[in-house]
Amino acid sequence: MPRPITFLSDYGLADEFVGVVHAVIAHECPTARVIDLAHGIPRQSVLAGALMLARALPYAPPGVHLAVVDPEVGARRRAVALRTALDDRILVGPDNGLLLPAAERFGWVTEAVEISTSPWRLEPVSATFHGRDLFAPVAARLAGGEALADAGTPLDPDELVRLELPKPRKGRKKGQLIVHAMVIDGFGNVQLDAAPGDLQARMGHPIAIGSDGRSARYLRTFADAKAGELLLYEDAAGMLSLAVNGGEAAAELGGVTPGDELRLTPS
Amino acid sequence: MPRPITFLSDYGLADEFVGVVHAVIAHECPTARVIDLAHGIPRQSVLAGALMLARALPYAPPGVHLAVVDPEVGARRRAVALRTALDDRILVGPDNGLLLPAAERFGWVTEAVEISTSPWRLEPVSATFHGRDLFAPVAARLAGGEALADAGTPLDPDELVRLELPKPRKGRKKGQLIVHAMVIDGFGNVQLDAAPGDLQARMGHPIAIGSDGRSARYLRTFADAKAGELLLYEDAAGMLSLAVNGGEAAAELGGVTPGDELRLTPS
Amino acid sequence: MPRPITFLSDYGLADEFVGVVHAVIAHECPTARVIDLAHGIPRQSVLAGALMLARALPYAPPGVHLAVVDPEVGARRRAVALRTALDDRILVGPDNGLLLPAAERFGWVTEAVEISTSPWRLEPVSATFHGRDLFAPVAARLAGGEALADAGTPLDPDELVRLELPKPRKGRKKGQLIVHAMVIDGFGNVQLDAAPGDLQARMGHPIAIGSDGRSARYLRTFADAKAGELLLYEDAAGMLSLAVNGGEAAAELGGVTPGDELRLTPS
Repeated sequence: MPRPITFLSDYGLADEFVGVVHAVIAHECPTARVIDLAHGIPRQSVLAGALMLARALPYAPPGVHLAVVDPEVGARRRAVALRTALDDRILVGPDNGLLLPAAERFGWVTEAVEISTSPWRLEPVSATFHGRDLFAPVAARLAGGEALADAGTPLDPDELVRLELPKPRKGRKKGQLIVHAMVIDGFGNVQLDAAPGDLQARMGHPIAIGSDGRSARYLRTFADAKAGELLLYEDAAGMLSLAVNGGEAAAELGGVTPGDELRLTPS
Repeated sequence: MPRPITFLSDYGLADEFVGVVHAVIAHECPTARVIDLAHGIPRQSVLAGALMLARALPYAPPGVHLAVVDPEVGARRRAVALRTALDDRILVGPDNGLLLPAAERFGWVTEAVEISTSPWRLEPVSATFHGRDLFAPVAARLAGGEALADAGTPLDPDELVRLELPKPRKGRKKGQLIVHAMVIDGFGNVQLDAAPGDLQARMGHPIAIGSDGRSARYLRTFADAKAGELLLYEDAAGMLSLAVNGGEAAAELGGVTPGDELRLTPS
Repeated sequence: MPRPITFLSDYGLADEFVGVVHAVIAHECPTARVIDLAHGIPRQSVLAGALMLARALPYAPPGVHLAVVDPEVGARRRAVALRTALDDRILVGPDNGLLLPAAERFGWVTEAVEISTSPWRLEPVSATFHGRDLFAPVAARLAGGEALADAGTPLDPDELVRLELPKPRKGRKKGQLIVHAMVIDGFGNVQLDAAPGDLQARMGHPIAIGSDGRSARYLRTFADAKAGELLLYEDAAGMLSLAVNGGEAAAELGGVTPGDELRLTPS
């Protein structure tokens, strides 16, 4: 039985892009199971895609993990397939930082291959749809059991492109933590780049958010908040998140977007 | 071969929530087939989810039916798995009324189990994503053939939470029927909570809708209406629905939303 | 093993329509693989659906290809299943022009069957949801290996409804080409009904678009354009397309929609 394939992209579901990638995989490896992780990543947001992939992969069975958020398609960026130290997972996608945070959830990268001229690609490779012409056939062949080394030419894993992620840091006030909005989900919840252990917060106590007098209570879950109340809680990924019970925190906070800085000041 | 799993939720497709539930199922039961029924239910609308599930399940093969619309996740609501009298179907989800209307399409509930502390859950169970940590692994194990009784602790089916549904009633005028908008679909069609037999309507005749002079002809299908005409017809679920040929009835009627009352008066 | 089924529709993903079609197929042919090509086609746009299907099918494995964009459902339009000369593909859907452009990518239609009263339909057939009651069970049976001739009554392939497509033509100015917007994708890219060979364009040179002074450079790919620049390029389907690097060409060009005429004048 072939290995399962997961697939994540920013293609959206309005067009046939996701469907055509599935079609190519079914063509190359008819019995491979394909699990769609998500296709609604904000267009061309490599950071959002990298974070989502890193959150989702630990729940997926080991296999081939295809991910495409690829603003530089057609330019000189590399295309890669790489193997992780643990679980023998294989990740396939553009070499723009999208894959590394997820790969490193499984130790480190033990083998990397540049696949731009892979013998398995569909010719002619278009300038704009490498998901179809390059990544899908490579993922399908690898799921079917072909060797990673045969997918292209070897590449030193240390040369893989790495995203610069902002880092949370201490603020000037006592206990203050300067964090960043990392993920805004469809419920308007705002995931931050800090975990509960990073903040001196006591359950039930208020935390000032920013400097305009807004505050959120630190609670265990939505259900502990009043309707419309802003709360800070440990989300399902183990990170601090801001939410409004029955509302949208991102909008409530004035339209927070990923990367925005937020000051958390325990009172 | 494992039993098929259907999956319905209000998670939407922008985030990775649906994909992660699929990933967990594939992890626990690699050969289970998962059929997505819908994930675009209005957020936290248990009523809309319950009605959609009840409409869809009779078309699905018997198996395990996972449904998650769960505004009280993390609070004290129960999580349940239950078995139907006919077809030996198993439904899994929160105990908030979501499952019963669908379950009762197959007779009644013969066995119910409270699964909040199921031995099959993924630890640590997050406060906000029970789809991933609780419902998905339980559904996967049941699809794989494990016994319902082993999923948790027994629960009296009579204690399951039941939704209060509005009921159509007679109005003061002759033949008048007071109904409710139940489902607004993506085409703007408005399904009512009455069937053709509930209304004294003759094919081709007008029915006053509300009291502001608007009327709809009772017709067999869209194609019998003029472009832009409001019509009342028997929809694919066997219920009365309002539609505009080539338009959106919900908007045309001033923004009808589920639960809104509408007066139908045959002329 | 059953043949794979592809599925394309304008049902959208907000409602349960797509899920119910999957459910019916799983009921009738439990081991058939179903590949969703796309469900976000603009509602009732037969032309957009036909073009999308024709673009996607060459990438799909031969099998049964279900497509439903069906503004005349419930009226007198025929429902059909047809076989292609090459690859032995079977297409199933309404006889409104949706299927032919895709079918003819595989030669011509060798056999057609009118399936409105197919013995495989689900009774009672609703007036509005033939995807569920008619097309899905017919597609499932055909995927399972039953004979096309048994799906209904024979129909002369020459009688199949054919879409009238606009055609590109020469303009009055030297080298001018009058084309039409055919597809607007989710990135706002505008695919035209002409291929690079139809236009005397040199790589890197500007092409006037319309008559209000706007121009696009003819480039190989997005990455060759400046941020915000309008470009004309050969897209992944081998057609000329307009795009804005990091923006939305359709909006930039004043809200282009499918069928709109555009004048391309090489300078």
